[in-house]
Amino acid sequence: MRFGGRSTEILREPQQDRSRATRQRLLEAAIECIAEQGFAGSTVAVVAERAGVSRGAAQHHFPTREDLVTSAVEYVSAQRLAVLRSHAVDLPVGLARTREVVTLIGRMYTSPLFRAAINVWVAASSDERLRERVIGLEAQVGRESHRVVVELLGADESRPGVREAVQATLDLGRGLGLANLLSDDGRRRRRVLDQWAAMLAETLADGDRPTA
Amino acid sequence: MRFGGRSTEILREPQQDRSRATRQRLLEAAIECIAEQGFAGSTVAVVAERAGVSRGAAQHHFPTREDLVTSAVEYVSAQRLAVLRSHAVDLPVGLARTREVVTLIGRMYTSPLFRAAINVWVAASSDERLRERVIGLEAQVGRESHRVVVELLGADESRPGVREAVQATLDLGRGLGLANLLSDDGRRRRRVLDQWAAMLAETLADGDRPTA
Repeated sequence: MRFGGRSTEILREPQQDRSRATRQRLLEAAIECIAEQGFAGSTVAVVAERAGVSRGAAQHHFPTREDLVTSAVEYVSAQRLAVLRSHAVDLPVGLARTREVVTLIGRMYTSPLFRAAINVWVAASSDERLRERVIGLEAQVGRESHRVVVELLGADESRPGVREAVQATLDLGRGLGLANLLSDDGRRRRRVLDQWAAMLAETLADGDRPTA
Repeated sequence: MRFGGRSTEILREPQQDRSRATRQRLLEAAIECIAEQGFAGSTVAVVAERAGVSRGAAQHHFPTREDLVTSAVEYVSAQRLAVLRSHAVDLPVGLARTREVVTLIGRMYTSPLFRAAINVWVAASSDERLRERVIGLEAQVGRESHRVVVELLGADESRPGVREAVQATLDLGRGLGLANLLSDDGRRRRRVLDQWAAMLAETLADGDRPTA
């Protein structure tokens, strides 16, 4: 052995990289697969084939479909939130900022990730085993999304009504995403988001006036 | 025959009534069944059993599951909208009115009908045949819901931003309904809707000021 005692260690690193890359491919393929074909058709075997990974390797990473699906939603959500947060540096101020953030939120809720997430939620609503896992995941992703949006908007949640207005923004995004599920209603969505941005900007600015 | 030539006609009416009652039982059972068990498990046979109707009779009314499911969403939506509209006479004025209407909308989107509708939309998003029928139905129910809400709010849609704010209210309701799918978040929902009502009332009142 050329590298003496260190060869095993050196070999282990690329193997770990490969293993991580395989895992990521599976997670991304799972989201695409669920978004396009629904939850029922997205078994570990189907996702493995889509990712170009052997069924055995896929099952080594994710023994059950619940493992694969919840890990996929968690991983891709974290990625999307990191991308969303990265916009923070380029944001303008005032109404223009609120508008841009609201547009980014609208985009997030019409992505394949959200299509996949809706499918997983609906499947979980009539599947006890999946439900338990998804409830915790949903709460965690919801909290993180809220935190990122507060940061992007520069919102002061100690002001009355601001916290609820930020939550309403995420609920509105979710509703618009659901409306977009069967047919693209992008034009309508942009008008609705524009109006909401105007209303939200006023609440963020007038936060010390009692609003409710 | 005691009633002479008229007996057939007299017999036909109760038969039509019975047929209509059977149809309604099937439609209501379909919504309950989909809301609880999801779309996949809600076949015509399963719904027929729940409604206490023979499989043959069910198939006479609804030859395919697509017929049953889309008719159910249409029928129960029309019923719910009629109930919603009936509240128009008791509504207070000003912010109190907006609050009450927003509360009614929140309730509509957390009902079994909406749970069933989400299941149908999601199933339709990966089922070409169902999709075609659901897209038309969704547009129709959406238009009618919008009209009823405009009426209940007493909103003047010729004012800038008002139409979009009403649409946003329905999109928000949809998003809140989706958030409620896996676990009851009624407390959070009430706070969000309260804040929303305050912002919406301002837009409805200040409609002549440019808002966006």
